[in-house]
Amino acid sequence: MEITTKTAKFTNPLYLESGRILEPYEIVYETYGQLNEDRSNVVVVCHALSGSHHAAGWYEGDRKPGWWDALIGDGKAIDTKKFFVICTNTLGSCFGTTGPMSKMYPSDEPYRFKFPVITIKDMVKAQRILFAKLGIDRVHAVVGGSMGGMQALRFAVDFPGFAKNIIALAATHATRPWVIAFNEIAKEAIIKDPDFKNGQYDPKELEQKGLTGLAIGRMAGHISFLSHYSMDRKFGRDYVPNEGIYELFGRFQVERYLEYNGYNFSKWFDPLSYLYITKAINLFDLSTGYDSLEEALERIRSKLYLIGFEKDLLFLPEEMRQIDEAMQKCGKGELSEYYEVKSDYGHDAFLVEIDKFSDYIHAIVEGKR
Amino acid sequence: MEITTKTAKFTNPLYLESGRILEPYEIVYETYGQLNEDRSNVVVVCHALSGSHHAAGWYEGDRKPGWWDALIGDGKAIDTKKFFVICTNTLGSCFGTTGPMSKMYPSDEPYRFKFPVITIKDMVKAQRILFAKLGIDRVHAVVGGSMGGMQALRFAVDFPGFAKNIIALAATHATRPWVIAFNEIAKEAIIKDPDFKNGQYDPKELEQKGLTGLAIGRMAGHISFLSHYSMDRKFGRDYVPNEGIYELFGRFQVERYLEYNGYNFSKWFDPLSYLYITKAINLFDLSTGYDSLEEALERIRSKLYLIGFEKDLLFLPEEMRQIDEAMQKCGKGELSEYYEVKSDYGHDAFLVEIDKFSDYIHAIVEGKR
Repeated sequence: MEITTKTAKFTNPLYLESGRILEPYEIVYETYGQLNEDRSNVVVVCHALSGSHHAAGWYEGDRKPGWWDALIGDGKAIDTKKFFVICTNTLGSCFGTTGPMSKMYPSDEPYRFKFPVITIKDMVKAQRILFAKLGIDRVHAVVGGSMGGMQALRFAVDFPGFAKNIIALAATHATRPWVIAFNEIAKEAIIKDPDFKNGQYDPKELEQKGLTGLAIGRMAGHISFLSHYSMDRKFGRDYVPNEGIYELFGRFQVERYLEYNGYNFSKWFDPLSYLYITKAINLFDLSTGYDSLEEALERIRSKLYLIGFEKDLLFLPEEMRQIDEAMQKCGKGELSEYYEVKSDYGHDAFLVEIDKFSDYIHAIVEGKR
Repeated sequence: MEITTKTAKFTNPLYLESGRILEPYEIVYETYGQLNEDRSNVVVVCHALSGSHHAAGWYEGDRKPGWWDALIGDGKAIDTKKFFVICTNTLGSCFGTTGPMSKMYPSDEPYRFKFPVITIKDMVKAQRILFAKLGIDRVHAVVGGSMGGMQALRFAVDFPGFAKNIIALAATHATRPWVIAFNEIAKEAIIKDPDFKNGQYDPKELEQKGLTGLAIGRMAGHISFLSHYSMDRKFGRDYVPNEGIYELFGRFQVERYLEYNGYNFSKWFDPLSYLYITKAINLFDLSTGYDSLEEALERIRSKLYLIGFEKDLLFLPEEMRQIDEAMQKCGKGELSEYYEVKSDYGHDAFLVEIDKFSDYIHAIVEGKR
């Protein structure tokens, strides 16, 4: 499978939902497989909070492949021998697409807090502009989980003619206060961290030593991505060897896992991007600008595949089912299908239990459903 | 109802589960109602993480009564006209009983990190010693929710002849990694906060300005105490008025709630006590020292009433049901009863939805079950 990574530069203004303008801006994207002659084999993949355009395949020297490599590739559920897969890094992120640490033209200084608030609608709009530039005006499918699922749903509502199939996993129609509360832990921990320097931090420095506030935020995130059951299996009540059980800081395995992953994350993810992207997630509500969810969904002309995960505690499966119910209610039942994945892993099942839904996604993209 | 608050001082050493010794130590406790002549009307109430001995009634000038006032009082479910109710402040806490900020005799300096690790077993042992001093060797009931429920269960196992009835609400037989993970957010946020000064903070200073790390930990706690549904009802997706929706720090109601309550909490609760008490919760496992949960439960001679809350996400109701199942399994079925409260509020239901279980508790203490 061939991986191509490119950057598209745009000098036209991007009008954002907030009323503000981004100009100029860049979008980094990755493609796998070949675009066919009539450009009918495009599958758009959208990433989640901490993801990037690197959805599949291996970069030289890396220890891990792209984040959905188990799903995307030659002969896999989304078969790159048949499909031309595109994944872009979203606006506001920190892997090459314009975000808060990008230079604020014409100055040489990064935006930092002068970066405008970005919404899921903006992320999708920017992708749509990129695809138009690539000569792609209609795609076979848009697929995404978590914040990627929000993007897929926004594609369905905002660009009704664009995608034949929309596959949204482990997402919601409107972010609930439960999720906003988890993001608030991160926000508070980041902005109050003295090393964050009110946003004036040196990114090189953080790459070396990380940022405690972001690490704590990510630790809270990890809780929300798992479940009681997956934590039981991963950690149980096991202790880290050689740390005394009756020492105040003698640690359980779960504590070590959170610390390790939290601090590690804070070395490769930008804290301002974390604030901006979680804000976009908090603001997400498919019905914004409409009188109701049903009214928003009435615009849809794609076939909607809604995948919920039984023990997802970040976005409860009922939230995906509610979209299906709303589709039925507004007479679009034939364009909607809800599928619940049996899993007690929690939210992250969409990333780690691919086996449980890859056949389903395969059938959809192959037109066998 | 008469409220009496007293402090008992002990000069004998208290041998702790860790092998360390506490000497001397003090226990603050509160009583309501009158001890009858044959001392047969005692109900022991155990508090949760941030609770105190002030379980019921009003202190002069206070805006709020004790934390379980809706349940305990004259003519209430636990009727203080009939029962003599005792609630002690647990070891390690910060409301008068010996804890990490108590003076480390013979020095005048507080223990701080030199305070020994305390377990639920230790908390219960200290209470048992206090009761013996008061001439109480057998009680009508021990009642508690969350960490208070853990104490009630420990009373049942550690002092089999002590209580006629054990009523444990919203607790577990062994703390799962899910809960340890939430406590880890608090631990990390507290110890990395520069104002914590590695435990050498000035408590007077923190009473004035609070401690960000503890506030963040408490915010995480609040999430774990609620549920998706109670948050929907309390906050929905509502914005704080006059804060722009597209401002990065324009806040949702849920964000304001967490900030306000988190920072407020950090002004009246001690961060070292928070570390020590969450450690005790993390360490809690009824089966410690036995080959299995069943073997521990075999010791029980009290009647066990186990109350789970349907949408409790901190301690799932199944964890309480498992105790009942284990009691059946070891032939103690007649001494065990499981009751599930219909509620979508989350863990805090044991504090705020008293109406849903007060009749049940009333029937138990009145001997009508």
